[in-house]
Amino acid sequence: MKLSDMALQLGGALEGDGQIEIRGVAGIGEAKPGDISFVSNPKYAPLAEKTRASAVIVPEEWTSECPAALIRVPNADEAFAKTAALFYAPPPLPAVGVHPSAVVAAAAELGSGVRIGPLCVIEAGANIGGGTVISAQCYIGHKVQIGEGCQLYPQVSVRESGRIGDRVIIHNGTVIGSDGFGYSVDHDGVRTKIDQTGIVQIGDDVEIGANVTIDRARFGKTRIGNGVKIDNLVQIAHNVTIGDHAVIVAQTGIAGSSSLGSRVIMAGQSGATGHLKIGDGVVVGAKSAVTKDIAAGEYVIGFPAVPAATFKKNQAGIALLPKLKKRVAALEKRMSLLDKEL
Amino acid sequence: MKLSDMALQLGGALEGDGQIEIRGVAGIGEAKPGDISFVSNPKYAPLAEKTRASAVIVPEEWTSECPAALIRVPNADEAFAKTAALFYAPPPLPAVGVHPSAVVAAAAELGSGVRIGPLCVIEAGANIGGGTVISAQCYIGHKVQIGEGCQLYPQVSVRESGRIGDRVIIHNGTVIGSDGFGYSVDHDGVRTKIDQTGIVQIGDDVEIGANVTIDRARFGKTRIGNGVKIDNLVQIAHNVTIGDHAVIVAQTGIAGSSSLGSRVIMAGQSGATGHLKIGDGVVVGAKSAVTKDIAAGEYVIGFPAVPAATFKKNQAGIALLPKLKKRVAALEKRMSLLDKEL
Amino acid sequence: MKLSDMALQLGGALEGDGQIEIRGVAGIGEAKPGDISFVSNPKYAPLAEKTRASAVIVPEEWTSECPAALIRVPNADEAFAKTAALFYAPPPLPAVGVHPSAVVAAAAELGSGVRIGPLCVIEAGANIGGGTVISAQCYIGHKVQIGEGCQLYPQVSVRESGRIGDRVIIHNGTVIGSDGFGYSVDHDGVRTKIDQTGIVQIGDDVEIGANVTIDRARFGKTRIGNGVKIDNLVQIAHNVTIGDHAVIVAQTGIAGSSSLGSRVIMAGQSGATGHLKIGDGVVVGAKSAVTKDIAAGEYVIGFPAVPAATFKKNQAGIALLPKLKKRVAALEKRMSLLDKEL
Repeated sequence: MKLSDMALQLGGALEGDGQIEIRGVAGIGEAKPGDISFVSNPKYAPLAEKTRASAVIVPEEWTSECPAALIRVPNADEAFAKTAALFYAPPPLPAVGVHPSAVVAAAAELGSGVRIGPLCVIEAGANIGGGTVISAQCYIGHKVQIGEGCQLYPQVSVRESGRIGDRVIIHNGTVIGSDGFGYSVDHDGVRTKIDQTGIVQIGDDVEIGANVTIDRARFGKTRIGNGVKIDNLVQIAHNVTIGDHAVIVAQTGIAGSSSLGSRVIMAGQSGATGHLKIGDGVVVGAKSAVTKDIAAGEYVIGFPAVPAATFKKNQAGIALLPKLKKRVAALEKRMSLLDKEL
Repeated sequence: MKLSDMALQLGGALEGDGQIEIRGVAGIGEAKPGDISFVSNPKYAPLAEKTRASAVIVPEEWTSECPAALIRVPNADEAFAKTAALFYAPPPLPAVGVHPSAVVAAAAELGSGVRIGPLCVIEAGANIGGGTVISAQCYIGHKVQIGEGCQLYPQVSVRESGRIGDRVIIHNGTVIGSDGFGYSVDHDGVRTKIDQTGIVQIGDDVEIGANVTIDRARFGKTRIGNGVKIDNLVQIAHNVTIGDHAVIVAQTGIAGSSSLGSRVIMAGQSGATGHLKIGDGVVVGAKSAVTKDIAAGEYVIGFPAVPAATFKKNQAGIALLPKLKKRVAALEKRMSLLDKEL
Repeated sequence: MKLSDMALQLGGALEGDGQIEIRGVAGIGEAKPGDISFVSNPKYAPLAEKTRASAVIVPEEWTSECPAALIRVPNADEAFAKTAALFYAPPPLPAVGVHPSAVVAAAAELGSGVRIGPLCVIEAGANIGGGTVISAQCYIGHKVQIGEGCQLYPQVSVRESGRIGDRVIIHNGTVIGSDGFGYSVDHDGVRTKIDQTGIVQIGDDVEIGANVTIDRARFGKTRIGNGVKIDNLVQIAHNVTIGDHAVIVAQTGIAGSSSLGSRVIMAGQSGATGHLKIGDGVVVGAKSAVTKDIAAGEYVIGFPAVPAATFKKNQAGIALLPKLKKRVAALEKRMSLLDKEL
């Protein structure tokens, strides 16, 4: 694609040779001749100065040196995303219909345009909405309902009676609807399984990463709201409720029956104990552990999680401890001199 | 089912219309007309007051208002579990025998009533006990021994020579017997793999959640005792020993060669470093990290884990630091005034 | 195997009956008659004194009692590894060629001696190097390149366009190339997916544990260097770079665009936030969270991670807090007495 055409498409101002043929996109530090790259943050100016890219998308106000042709745009990040899309060829989907190697129960219902990849298993009573893609080696259990326009990547498991909305994306190896972790315990500490007879219900426009686990409810539903984004290796226990548009970053765990409001953000490796209520818009810092209810809008951090300001004060206090100890020792010494004098 | 029949079955005292037809079970907050629900904790009284359930199971001493018919029982929790079981139809199992799409080595031995689901792989020398269910797409390696009455959910991997007891349940995506993480390291920091030639041995009545990893021993055995319950996304390293009836909650990790006594409880996201001895009945708090041996019966928490009472004292101490700093400053001021006076 | 032959092979000095027939290897505490075991650490002397092993490999300088025949060697650990290898029969590999149940696209290229196990899916454009083993039920995506001499255990997923070097080992359930966790967010907190158009590139001699997730780059590459060893349940986000010979222990998570130098060690359950630079040879303690750049060679620990010496000082300070509080109270009391006296 010619650089001048690209500048036109992006509505940007071209500085340099518009005849350059752009063959790919790359990060500013690793681009080769023929690539277009981008910088938006001034801290990358040193990389821009010595880039080998043929062209670079920059913010309108960009001033640092750069040996490449430039396209100036109002939002370099967004313009580069558009550019990357021009060069991106997504991999082919499984063919429409059922791959001959898949094992699909006669009593499963498939909407129009559904694609079932090789070596999938679709159990009886499953219902899969129009245009949904079930990639290779997935397992779709008994009476599972999946909406329209979803994409399940290879090796996803959706256990019996799970309900998934429209336009949901689920990455490889994720398990929806495994049994909740529930036992009764006798006086000798021996545990007996409590049947987990509920389901998992997932809203529309949800994306779930790889190797995630979401347990079915003891009874009723484990609920994932609309627009929720869940990263890899997250654990969501039975009877949890996650509000619309919440974000759960990698390796976070949410214990049984806790409920998260809408737009809650739980950063990476954070956790919440069971039966908690975390209000709308709460942000939980990375690696933090929520152990009691949190009011809407709070930003908490630490183990156990406290308001972010308190956490910072506590950390500062701890860092000053050796000095404080010395000050107390000095006071004691002067006090004991005083005692002798008086 | 008629409500009066249900009260009879539960041995409870009915208050209200016994002719009501109950069609399902649900939580007190989400029940619809035709549902039966339960409350046992007085904190749910406000939900009980406005429930839409047709009937509610309550403790004998329940006094709060409730618009629904009531069944009074000595143990509402247990009675509701029984009720839920009445309405629960578990999904159908794979048929007895081997699904035609499964790839089963001629030299595998299958007990009577074994069910092998679609697209499973069973390697030579595997031995699967009577009545065991291997669901779709599982991998059972060379010479694996699985006992009687087990249930493996879809996409479980059991690697070569693993031994699993009777009545063991393993959820989707779990890996039993991956190689331990063991290397020799040279002076340049380059690592060479140490063969992991041991196995994993799992006792009877164990349940293992989804996407768990349990590594095979370097030599000898990684051992999981009888009655152990392991939640999702747990990591158990090579040569670990877990005592009978221990409970390992989600996302916990136990490093190589550590041994846990019987009835140990490791709460969610906790961890133990390698070569430790954790005594019988120890409880490790959520997100805590055990870094040295722990005597039987202790309850530890924190990073590094300390006795729970110490942890609480430390947290209180940290919260008081700003005040303590002020008190020291006040003392210093008075001391310096004294110094001038004397 | 006769014990005298074994001593000869190990170049060790035999003490005891060389005619003993050794039939297996086991740990010192669990060995039975007919087994050979080893001890290298004096703390295991009590176990050596009452071992039931027929023979034990010991360091040359070993002095404690032991009822078994001994083989004295300079490096008991290494000698035992050699011995264990003598008795270890690795499980059979899939046959050379493509298992008839695998679904392999006509347009996939397989090197000489490649083994494709049962029920694998290999998509069009995939290229698999000579001698590589793809075990049962793996998914190899569109245009994936895998080098020579690799071993993928069952149920591994490698998503489209991933590149894997030579002699790479990947354990069960691991996902290479799932989408990075990237969204744009509007003023209402609603997120829109940013296409993740890059790839994952893995060097030579890498080993990756079970149920690991490594996300593809937003654009460009997520890079894993040569000789890197990654344990189970690790999360590596989009655009991360991991230097040669780094070691990432179980359940660690590395957030987007962070880069680790060569020979970095991240201990179990540790984490790093995004866009960080962690220098060569840095060691991050277990369960610690790196939140800012770390210079080469540092050893950091804690949450947030600080130099190990600081962490220890801080912990000691916290432990002394109750005593410090008492000392301040005592000073206050004496000061108030002084105030009255003067």
